[in-house]
Amino acid sequence: MTTSPDDHAKPPVGVLGLGLMGTALAAAFLKAGHPTTVWNRTPSKTGPLTAQGAIPAETPADAITAGPLTLVCLTTYDDVTELLRPHSTDLTGRTLVNVTNGTPVEARKLASWAEEHGIAYVDGGIMAVPQMIATPAAYILYSGDERAYGKHHSTLAALGGTRWTGTDPGLAALYDLSLLTGMYGMVAGVAQAYALIRSEGIPAGELAPLLKDWLTVMANGLVPGTAHAVDTGRHLTDVSSLAVSRAAFPGLLHTFADQGIRTELLEPMRELLDRAVAEGYADDGLSRLVELLAS
Amino acid sequence: MTTSPDDHAKPPVGVLGLGLMGTALAAAFLKAGHPTTVWNRTPSKTGPLTAQGAIPAETPADAITAGPLTLVCLTTYDDVTELLRPHSTDLTGRTLVNVTNGTPVEARKLASWAEEHGIAYVDGGIMAVPQMIATPAAYILYSGDERAYGKHHSTLAALGGTRWTGTDPGLAALYDLSLLTGMYGMVAGVAQAYALIRSEGIPAGELAPLLKDWLTVMANGLVPGTAHAVDTGRHLTDVSSLAVSRAAFPGLLHTFADQGIRTELLEPMRELLDRAVAEGYADDGLSRLVELLAS
Repeated sequence: MTTSPDDHAKPPVGVLGLGLMGTALAAAFLKAGHPTTVWNRTPSKTGPLTAQGAIPAETPADAITAGPLTLVCLTTYDDVTELLRPHSTDLTGRTLVNVTNGTPVEARKLASWAEEHGIAYVDGGIMAVPQMIATPAAYILYSGDERAYGKHHSTLAALGGTRWTGTDPGLAALYDLSLLTGMYGMVAGVAQAYALIRSEGIPAGELAPLLKDWLTVMANGLVPGTAHAVDTGRHLTDVSSLAVSRAAFPGLLHTFADQGIRTELLEPMRELLDRAVAEGYADDGLSRLVELLAS
Repeated sequence: MTTSPDDHAKPPVGVLGLGLMGTALAAAFLKAGHPTTVWNRTPSKTGPLTAQGAIPAETPADAITAGPLTLVCLTTYDDVTELLRPHSTDLTGRTLVNVTNGTPVEARKLASWAEEHGIAYVDGGIMAVPQMIATPAAYILYSGDERAYGKHHSTLAALGGTRWTGTDPGLAALYDLSLLTGMYGMVAGVAQAYALIRSEGIPAGELAPLLKDWLTVMANGLVPGTAHAVDTGRHLTDVSSLAVSRAAFPGLLHTFADQGIRTELLEPMRELLDRAVAEGYADDGLSRLVELLAS
């Protein structure tokens, strides 16, 4: 690592929690030139970071009081609460950035606790795996205390792209979970597609380029198109109606069954399509399913 | 439409079945300069095409014998069989291109019947809605008689892009259904994501740009990555293990339930992740699910 006078001007940070993700985040701070104090319940985990220039903290308080910003990355919000509760005084007047995975409700609860103790709370949702941290492909969703976020933006930018979602501290988690859910849908579809193609002895790699292009086209058309239909309440379509999907679905399931492939991931979609048509939405597009999931 | 001497050299085609898709296909042939004879069970549907220069056929035989290639686009394979059985002699020595939606088994059965009667059979799977036909975004998967396909390739190219999948006549349907399944997975994930975001009063359009980019990145990474893992049998990952997904999933479902959103589309994924870990695949990536769907 090269150092320059500017590096020394970068504000110090504390990182609590050195799992794979916490370690990647601390390493990114170090690489960007932030004096980084790190703490982990199992102290041995600080080793690799210390070798990169991190300052090992004996106690959580040592890391928290090392600078104006403390980043927490643990397994659950319960872990966070348990760890931080005895340190509310240490945190007062500082910014707490919590990137632990959780729900909007958990984020709001922790934000309330922080507010009670004069701690500026920023919640973060990491849209990346540890290997991607600080690369252009990684970004983190943030929500909560906008002033604190603005003040520390250049520090947080060391971790990758930033996306501000709003002052409700639950929003980063909400967006994070929404994107994850979209991903699991794609995972299910892709797994099912490859299982089908392989049932005929065809390598998945034969389908891969077609599937990649097809899903890219869908992401670019269906994703904004569905949002527009939902937000305007205009679900009628002349392109691909629920009636057409519903008519095609049993054949799809039948094909999988014929090929000895399990259909459990697809069955609920068939039931939802049946319900959509039964409730009078035959001529609507797939965007109608968004409403049906809320009722 | 401009005409040139070359247009008159284009081989004539017959189109049977003038639903939305059949009409779009016939119009594309006409626009490309192919003399196009059209037939539909309900003759009134030939009107708009006749206005564009199509020749209306009184009987299926009139359309079949109009040229070397007959394209059939009906609702089901049963419709196709019923329509064509009395016309096997008319079809003998010609090429039958069937783009009716169906299963690989149905395509193979029809191909056998065609072979018995000296009919060159090409099966087609249309990866487009009617509005997209003859645009760069549309393409058709083909399989079956490769010689006939090669002979008529320039005619078929009038309908949009072409993708040859192999001589097994069931392959076009197999690829078609695989891609459709991938799409339904994405549809489920997207619907679920929008339902979640809207449960907080946030317009779907706020999430749309993030979701579009996120799913595009996934399509480009996860789709080829999963194929590679499956084809090589190397499912171990240090990026995103089944154990991690399984641990995160109950929280995901919990969040949806908290927000009053139905989770029926997601439940089977939770069960599959549980099974994956129970069967000893905790350290594998999501690619392992492809294998689990086949067992």
